[in-house]
Amino acid sequence: MSSPSRLYPQKLDHPRGRTEILIGAGALEAAAERLAGWLEGRTLAVVSTPRLRELHGEALAPLGRRAAHTVALEVPDGEQAKTLATAERLWNELLAAGGKRDSRLIAFGGGSVGDLGGFVAGCFLRGIEYAQIPTTLLAQVDAAIGGKTAVDLAGGKNTVGVFHHPAWVVSDTALLATLGRAELACGLVEVVKMALLLDPPLMERVEADLEPLLAGDAVALAPVVAAATAAKCSVVESDPEEGGRRRVLNFGHTLGHAIEGVLKYQQLRHGEAVAYGMLFAVRLAERRGLAAEFGERLRRLLRRLALPPLPALDPEALCEFMARDKKALRTGLVWVLPTSRGGEIFGAPAMVPGIDRRELRAELGAFLAEPFAG
Amino acid sequence: MSSPSRLYPQKLDHPRGRTEILIGAGALEAAAERLAGWLEGRTLAVVSTPRLRELHGEALAPLGRRAAHTVALEVPDGEQAKTLATAERLWNELLAAGGKRDSRLIAFGGGSVGDLGGFVAGCFLRGIEYAQIPTTLLAQVDAAIGGKTAVDLAGGKNTVGVFHHPAWVVSDTALLATLGRAELACGLVEVVKMALLLDPPLMERVEADLEPLLAGDAVALAPVVAAATAAKCSVVESDPEEGGRRRVLNFGHTLGHAIEGVLKYQQLRHGEAVAYGMLFAVRLAERRGLAAEFGERLRRLLRRLALPPLPALDPEALCEFMARDKKALRTGLVWVLPTSRGGEIFGAPAMVPGIDRRELRAELGAFLAEPFAG
Repeated sequence: MSSPSRLYPQKLDHPRGRTEILIGAGALEAAAERLAGWLEGRTLAVVSTPRLRELHGEALAPLGRRAAHTVALEVPDGEQAKTLATAERLWNELLAAGGKRDSRLIAFGGGSVGDLGGFVAGCFLRGIEYAQIPTTLLAQVDAAIGGKTAVDLAGGKNTVGVFHHPAWVVSDTALLATLGRAELACGLVEVVKMALLLDPPLMERVEADLEPLLAGDAVALAPVVAAATAAKCSVVESDPEEGGRRRVLNFGHTLGHAIEGVLKYQQLRHGEAVAYGMLFAVRLAERRGLAAEFGERLRRLLRRLALPPLPALDPEALCEFMARDKKALRTGLVWVLPTSRGGEIFGAPAMVPGIDRRELRAELGAFLAEPFAG
Repeated sequence: MSSPSRLYPQKLDHPRGRTEILIGAGALEAAAERLAGWLEGRTLAVVSTPRLRELHGEALAPLGRRAAHTVALEVPDGEQAKTLATAERLWNELLAAGGKRDSRLIAFGGGSVGDLGGFVAGCFLRGIEYAQIPTTLLAQVDAAIGGKTAVDLAGGKNTVGVFHHPAWVVSDTALLATLGRAELACGLVEVVKMALLLDPPLMERVEADLEPLLAGDAVALAPVVAAATAAKCSVVESDPEEGGRRRVLNFGHTLGHAIEGVLKYQQLRHGEAVAYGMLFAVRLAERRGLAAEFGERLRRLLRRLALPPLPALDPEALCEFMARDKKALRTGLVWVLPTSRGGEIFGAPAMVPGIDRRELRAELGAFLAEPFAG
């Protein structure tokens, strides 16, 4: 096991530059040094929530002291931050505080703060540089990496946004100690998604270290966050704007988003819905020849996460929601299904377009009755 | 002189792809063929105003027929279209009409429609492909080229936006026949800006053909639009996101924006304010050694445009506005001033930072009293 202060630096090259990534227990402290030149003499806007400022304000303070002038931009907790009205208020506050093209922004929070903060940075004066400092495991391994930003409309979640890569991502696993077990489990679902598709040794590590990971152990979490980040970076670098390969990251999300939507974003967390979405995708994949061990490993691990049970859901409503999926093309939905091509248990995932609605409807009925069955 | 049907195809390469540009009298008719594959089978959103649909709806119809399904997105005339509230309404309408990532958008109108339409395309599902079909000379030679999109906030114009290059620009000079002389003069001001800095032969053509140009002669306008577009493309290609050389296009805009702002966007059109801004920049440049012929050519041509007189303005208010310019950096404003370096009358423009406020104040006082004086 690594020493508490070990840092895992990474980078992500994208069409408009490079994202520098610092990962580890204590990464935020190291960041105050590393980001000093980036902040020096600038106006800095810090987007965060009152609760996070109370929890972690002290850890964040040294970064603020590097800037010439800091503006606190407050947003509510959770998804309700992600509105155009909030973005408009933040832009006006930043203008009133003298924000300019060379000002900096830090998004300090979970996925919602990151999505909104990135959008605010991406559109302010046509784009200013920003840093993501994610405070949840889910955001550290997923949302903070790759430049996706968004707000929600009445007509759908994440329907307005831009690709705008952060200049810096600082993932301090020491911040995760305040998270509950269920929140950590949600982050691990995305880790498992990337491990199964892209990094089998990471799957073994998660299986072996599950207890300290679910307990929020900063030192156990650091190499897991680092490996999941590396997997995500490799996919994003090969396909920055989701024209092709990046869609593998959508594994489990087609049904997952539909479950969240039909439940009106109540009852299940995002990671929990995605866990059920992966189980369903594996079920479809098994009908197409996926080796049994893949599904067994996934089911065994997800059982250990003690997810809340899947609420009663109408399969017809799920099919309707998927038909309106924003990742659908005019030619219909594309499913990401694992394969066992070439005899490998963990083969390359396949993009499967046009699964017949009758097949979906029948599989969904059986799945909803018994989601952990093969 | 060219035949009425001559087209001037161009292209602009940018970091995310290529913009194909069609220019000429009748370019819109040619576009129905050229854009057929781009539109085929897609949902097409056409952003425009009721007035423009009435004027040019028939010319636009063949394009609409190439798509599977067309959604009309109506916006008000002029700058009042450029709000977040309008953008939000358009996004919701496009979602409700089944808009997807592979849908297309056409912005059909002047600079305001183009700025808003480009922003709507740039943020819808994190960016869909779009075409600019500008209907004013100003938009054809300037706003439609280069991927700048924006809406206005209470705190300032064009303060929210993204760089999102159109896949196509179709500049049909036959559409300009419905413009008034003053609107054409405004477009010619931007042409003269690019001619003086980047293309002296274009300056000669404008001087020679001024009467047919101001009368909206489609055949006389086509090569002028083509040359101004080529000049702008060369600058944008060398600096896609205005980190350096693209700022030369800001010649005349530092004071121009301040004049517009202090007049609350009343009394003078954008091009008229920029004309006075160029006269002032040339005045500052003459104090720094600019050859007299440069200013004489500019003054002679602008006099022929018969601009409305400069209203009474408070120099202190102009200085205040410029200090808040969104293109200012923390180190202050950068002025674009023509030079006569190397003995050339039309030398490379210089970026001059930090002009002393007392000098500005004194020059402004004299300039406001007699804007056409050297």
